[in-house]
Amino acid sequence: MTEHNLWRFSRAFHRAINERQFNDIAGLLDEDVDWAIHGPIDMYPFLGARRGSAAVLEVIRQIAENFTVRRFDRETIMLGADSAASMLRYSLTALDSSKPVSLRVAHFARFRAGRLLSIRALLDSFDLVEQVFGQPLHLPRMASPA
Amino acid sequence: MTEHNLWRFSRAFHRAINERQFNDIAGLLDEDVDWAIHGPIDMYPFLGARRGSAAVLEVIRQIAENFTVRRFDRETIMLGADSAASMLRYSLTALDSSKPVSLRVAHFARFRAGRLLSIRALLDSFDLVEQVFGQPLHLPRMASPA
Repeated sequence: MTEHNLWRFSRAFHRAINERQFNDIAGLLDEDVDWAIHGPIDMYPFLGARRGSAAVLEVIRQIAENFTVRRFDRETIMLGADSAASMLRYSLTALDSSKPVSLRVAHFARFRAGRLLSIRALLDSFDLVEQVFGQPLHLPRMASPA
Repeated sequence: MTEHNLWRFSRAFHRAINERQFNDIAGLLDEDVDWAIHGPIDMYPFLGARRGSAAVLEVIRQIAENFTVRRFDRETIMLGADSAASMLRYSLTALDSSKPVSLRVAHFARFRAGRLLSIRALLDSFDLVEQVFGQPLHLPRMASPA
């Protein structure tokens, strides 16, 4: 039984972020990869949608310039033949401030011939923004009373 | 071939939100259901973690008091025998203001004997907060220059 594409991709991705070794991940991106991380692009311009391996590699390079991964826990996972979805909790360090950032991420990935064909990721973005600001943002309570 | 639990659950959930008919959904919650919607709980106290069908039914009731669903599109989906994950884009109306709100959600669900046993959902929460405020929140650009 061969290893699921997700594990190889995950190793290469974390190696790219933490060791700035981009060769492994470059070989695991479909030339026409369809990529999106939904999140606050005004704050992190490398979020958002990209098409093609060159554009995606540049995003990964920018993530590596801004964060290191201290640890991650995969809270939930679903594996298909050529697909995978998981929810992860990342403990990151923001490199500019050396601040710890805890981030929950959900992703849905598809692979073709061992390479990433598409990925959609969602961040618990408000939680991220509050941590980067370093203090809670005061929100009005919007819900109607129960 | 029987219908996947996700479809029955999804119909009952939307019926609960839009028609305030809670009987169907009540019958599809495991007594000990483990539930979490990760998001800004200061703003919407019905977000967060709950345990047990009574607590979850109360959350669904509060969602129904605050929002209606105008439309939803399932952008990505993975189905297992007793599990399902999807990413959805909701077009909601906030009932207090009649404002439209567009919301991206990822969820991972597990079922047992036809009932929801656990669900973890993640919202693109910053995008939600901005829409509810009715204007963009000005964020510093945090990323290092490329």
